[in-house]
Amino acid sequence: MEGAQSFLATEYYYLGIFMVIMSIAIFSLLSIVTPEDGRTRNDEVRNGIFSTISFVLGGATSILSGYLGMQIATYANARTAVEARKGIAPAFMCAFRSGAVMGFLLSGFGLLNLFLAITVFLKFYGDDWKGLFEAITGYGLGGSSIALFGRVAGGIYTKAADVGADLVGKVEKDIPEDDPRNPAVIADNVGDNVGDIAGMGADLFGSFAESTCAALVISAVSSLGKEHDYSGMLFPLLISATGILVCLATTFIATDLKPARVIAEIEHTLKMQLIISTVLMTPVAAGVALWALPASFTLSVPSSTPDKPFDEKVVKNWYMFVCVATGLWGGLLVGLQTEYFTSNRYKPVQDVADACRTGAATDIIFGLALGYKSCIIPTIVIGIAIYVGTSLAGMFGIACCALGMLSTLATGLAIDAYGPISDNAGGIAEMAGMGEDIRERTDALDAAGNTTAAIGKGFAIGSAALVSLALFGAYVTRSKIDMIHSSILDPRVFSGLLLGAMLPYWFSAMTMKSVGKAALAMVHEVRRQFNTIAGLMEGTTRPDYKRCVAISTQAAISEMVAPGALVMFTPVVVGTLFGTQCLAGVLAGSLVSGVQLAVSMSNTGGAWDNAKKYIEAGATEHARELGGKGSDCHKAAVIGDTVGDPLKDTSGPSLNILIKLMAVESLVFAPFFYNCAHGQGLIFQFFGLA
Amino acid sequence: MEGAQSFLATEYYYLGIFMVIMSIAIFSLLSIVTPEDGRTRNDEVRNGIFSTISFVLGGATSILSGYLGMQIATYANARTAVEARKGIAPAFMCAFRSGAVMGFLLSGFGLLNLFLAITVFLKFYGDDWKGLFEAITGYGLGGSSIALFGRVAGGIYTKAADVGADLVGKVEKDIPEDDPRNPAVIADNVGDNVGDIAGMGADLFGSFAESTCAALVISAVSSLGKEHDYSGMLFPLLISATGILVCLATTFIATDLKPARVIAEIEHTLKMQLIISTVLMTPVAAGVALWALPASFTLSVPSSTPDKPFDEKVVKNWYMFVCVATGLWGGLLVGLQTEYFTSNRYKPVQDVADACRTGAATDIIFGLALGYKSCIIPTIVIGIAIYVGTSLAGMFGIACCALGMLSTLATGLAIDAYGPISDNAGGIAEMAGMGEDIRERTDALDAAGNTTAAIGKGFAIGSAALVSLALFGAYVTRSKIDMIHSSILDPRVFSGLLLGAMLPYWFSAMTMKSVGKAALAMVHEVRRQFNTIAGLMEGTTRPDYKRCVAISTQAAISEMVAPGALVMFTPVVVGTLFGTQCLAGVLAGSLVSGVQLAVSMSNTGGAWDNAKKYIEAGATEHARELGGKGSDCHKAAVIGDTVGDPLKDTSGPSLNILIKLMAVESLVFAPFFYNCAHGQGLIFQFFGLA
Repeated sequence: MEGAQSFLATEYYYLGIFMVIMSIAIFSLLSIVTPEDGRTRNDEVRNGIFSTISFVLGGATSILSGYLGMQIATYANARTAVEARKGIAPAFMCAFRSGAVMGFLLSGFGLLNLFLAITVFLKFYGDDWKGLFEAITGYGLGGSSIALFGRVAGGIYTKAADVGADLVGKVEKDIPEDDPRNPAVIADNVGDNVGDIAGMGADLFGSFAESTCAALVISAVSSLGKEHDYSGMLFPLLISATGILVCLATTFIATDLKPARVIAEIEHTLKMQLIISTVLMTPVAAGVALWALPASFTLSVPSSTPDKPFDEKVVKNWYMFVCVATGLWGGLLVGLQTEYFTSNRYKPVQDVADACRTGAATDIIFGLALGYKSCIIPTIVIGIAIYVGTSLAGMFGIACCALGMLSTLATGLAIDAYGPISDNAGGIAEMAGMGEDIRERTDALDAAGNTTAAIGKGFAIGSAALVSLALFGAYVTRSKIDMIHSSILDPRVFSGLLLGAMLPYWFSAMTMKSVGKAALAMVHEVRRQFNTIAGLMEGTTRPDYKRCVAISTQAAISEMVAPGALVMFTPVVVGTLFGTQCLAGVLAGSLVSGVQLAVSMSNTGGAWDNAKKYIEAGATEHARELGGKGSDCHKAAVIGDTVGDPLKDTSGPSLNILIKLMAVESLVFAPFFYNCAHGQGLIFQFFGLA
Repeated sequence: MEGAQSFLATEYYYLGIFMVIMSIAIFSLLSIVTPEDGRTRNDEVRNGIFSTISFVLGGATSILSGYLGMQIATYANARTAVEARKGIAPAFMCAFRSGAVMGFLLSGFGLLNLFLAITVFLKFYGDDWKGLFEAITGYGLGGSSIALFGRVAGGIYTKAADVGADLVGKVEKDIPEDDPRNPAVIADNVGDNVGDIAGMGADLFGSFAESTCAALVISAVSSLGKEHDYSGMLFPLLISATGILVCLATTFIATDLKPARVIAEIEHTLKMQLIISTVLMTPVAAGVALWALPASFTLSVPSSTPDKPFDEKVVKNWYMFVCVATGLWGGLLVGLQTEYFTSNRYKPVQDVADACRTGAATDIIFGLALGYKSCIIPTIVIGIAIYVGTSLAGMFGIACCALGMLSTLATGLAIDAYGPISDNAGGIAEMAGMGEDIRERTDALDAAGNTTAAIGKGFAIGSAALVSLALFGAYVTRSKIDMIHSSILDPRVFSGLLLGAMLPYWFSAMTMKSVGKAALAMVHEVRRQFNTIAGLMEGTTRPDYKRCVAISTQAAISEMVAPGALVMFTPVVVGTLFGTQCLAGVLAGSLVSGVQLAVSMSNTGGAWDNAKKYIEAGATEHARELGGKGSDCHKAAVIGDTVGDPLKDTSGPSLNILIKLMAVESLVFAPFFYNCAHGQGLIFQFFGLA
């Protein structure tokens, strides 16, 4: 796929410029901090240097992960289409194995680089473990900021092409999806790779890097860090490492012991992967907690007496197992409820499909209601995880909940990558004119992939919420905010909460509008080609694919700047001008509001997509009643699906990164914010209100 | 309008039952509280009795307000249609005057009852002003709980009828809006009255009652209350009373000095009403603050030292003027930006209309993006108001900001009620076959009304946010939570925040789905009538209007229960089982997330509605390019409008009440929650975690 390569090259060129500017900002802002509490100027400069190095390393790892994911995917696409000739089972195996390779590669690679960085940094930091792990947080910042741009640009690219291709091709010209006569078809296929593979990979790599960083920076100030308990300190990395092994073991079940042989088994097999890896991981996590951690150790938690900012809290090693297990099983629960709300084998999506009888408007009303409703359980699960984690082990507990949820990341990535791989295999089959039966097989693979992609998104959001909260806790510690100054009764905190809750809306407004604008441009171009290129509809002339690719590329690159800037600048501006308390409010507000918006957007979009597929497939009595392809119901469902595209593939998943990225950025820059008027903010200092 | 009367009778019957149950709950839960801090059993019982009385009084006032509003509106509808024969100016005058009568009636009535209640209660409470004003909060609870049911039931009623009528009438049968051949037309017209008039009136009355109660209960523990400074205590009522007079003076400009004579002037005239009343109110507020309040007094604000829960804060009287003015001008700003985002004279709506070129999907994507974007300015305005209010005078400052925003309530209500009055006048004109030119005049009146209705909603949301925050502050005080125990680092508070942020989504899921279901039922009925009643399309037979009315009534009554229960039970369940801290988090979370959702829903819906009207009217070159009525663009716009109906008229406006109602309910029950395990929650007490 040449188009994908050239798009990534353009994207990475601009990201390279961004990383240079950002590196300079990190180095200079952290190095000019006035040393306090017995630290020297050298300590601050060292912090600046190593934070910058970890930032670059995280960013580079993220870029490389996205690139390698793409390479695997483009290879796997063609291979799966070829295997589909032999039947369902080989095609499924090929798509799933490719997904698994990607999952292991990304998580293993992320873990390895982090471990190497810690090992090298130790040489320079010696006994100052606190300083070391604070500098390591740059790794998370690098990973996530690249992920943000990747998600936004990839999301705009893929959805502009998808919406444009569908609106003219399917709705106006009535030609099948991925038909080579459609000028936007190449852009659409490229988009699946750059958006769903490269974007998703970078996103989950970011979550993984950040939750590990959050756990490390918090445990560095515990007795583990102070007493230099190396195996205890590496507990977060050990959980992730054993998680990869457990997931590896689990994949053998799908590939060798009990592979899916018929269409009906695919979704079940993929779902079982998630369940089995969760079951297997539970005793392993217990073993790791008991082996790596001392029987009891002490953590610093925010104090409720104002004389000293921190209390010591004694934590037993099995507490940490409970935290990991809570995250692990919570993640599974969120994943399964996501499946319930987005798979067309259950009532919610069937109700949405049924609402298409009265047109697109009721389809959309029902879909929005479904998305809103699907927020209930994830929120309760995350709420319980927060309570359990914090009660047992403060913010370290939350970070371990997040790690537990992400310990089955490799499986999640595998079943998630499986979706776009099958989707594009179908595209290749259609374009190569491989025949109706092969296309049917790839369609079946794809339908299952749609639901599992939604499960992956549920996972991504749940873990993002916990990760951000852990980062938030680490930020509060590092910026020296205590319980009193983070009260919701404080006007700065409350105003911050409100502004933070608004940010996901602002961000989504930009990304939705970008997709809309790019899709409009795409539609006009596709219409123009159909109208002016003679012989296009008859299939005698090839359309001008390149112009459509250029429109998507152009839109993605130029439109990623504004939302990216909003996310990157907000913490710095708020922290510097309005102080650390207000920033704490902003982070909490964007978290609680962003989670809801992200969950509802992803599930609404997934439900519309599968409602459409339900009507198309006509697998049940009820589905056939709705009329199948080309009926009025189906047309209404296509409108819903088109609206859902930017919701589920652009705005929704980018919101995860928004909440994580703002938190990790605040954590990295916390010493600088504290340095501005002791965290009171320059504006308030100027007006004498500090 | 017989239909409206009978619907309200049914609704009020069920609300009567609800009020009896709720009264028993209030009385018993408050009376069994164990007396502490030198209070006696008699004090608690007295609190129970008088809280219940004020609850009943508030509820009754709200019911009566809704009923009277309806009476005025139904009379005004017919009158306006008749006046439209004479021309635009008399019709406008009639509709606007009716709206103004309603505005003054509701706000005057609310104020009068509150004043009478305080005067009578004084006889029983003697010197215990704190107890008196705490009991008075029941007035706000009564007003808001009736408003909630009114809004939800009215919203479901009107939108089920509207969506049902439009989907079959306009889209399938291609007959004009309000055509008497459409069986759902009567239900639709009735709906406008019960939803937009009775519901809106009750909502804003609730805001008004609650903000006054919040201000009173906070100032009762200030030196104003302790030193029995009667005029100082009545400052909140004085602001509202002078506000009514200022609005009265302002209306003369629209009715006598400079009435709208041509269509183009209507929107401008209505907007000027808001601006002029804001300008006039500013010096008046200054006068009231300087006259009624002592030059300086002291307030209790949450303390940042944990030994004593409260600090004394010295407040100057002009501080209070600044708070009122901030709210007043903030409200105007929110109103004007709402106009910018929802009027089709500006670019945002024109862009949405333009997106209809490529179909309903892009129309909806652009509309959603517009709604998200419109959250930015109101959030910043409210954030600033919170900071200014709290910095100057703690939660009393916030309550005064809210009062300031609501001081122009009478004008807001007038221009808001103007919309549905003109809308229904058009309906009557169409049904009575009054001729094309008269219908055109009422349509023009209606289009302006659409935008002003959106302004009214902007006002309602802004003030609701401030009111809830003030109530929240009063709740925190009454439930004895201090700064430390309301830290966002506390796991109970943070879990509460997250759950609270989810509630608006849960609530919206229910209300949206209710509208969708009821609309489906309506569509089937309307289709059935068109298919089975011979001569209906030809206009020779009358349709069976009653069955449509019955469907709307039935749906509204049965579907209002679940969302109502969610809002009424949540504070009680959370407060009792999980404690006062967790409830504080829930209130803050629902506030910050609900505001965004409400603003975006209202504005998205308003924009879609006016984009449709823009295409229909074809007033500019660009609008005519889109093709006008019946074109593909117009069909796409109708789909958007239909999706927007439940967003802007059911879910969005109900969310205001959700956030206010939960806060005022928590305030009323605060002593009971504190009584359950000292505010730690029975669940935590049971598990020994308290």
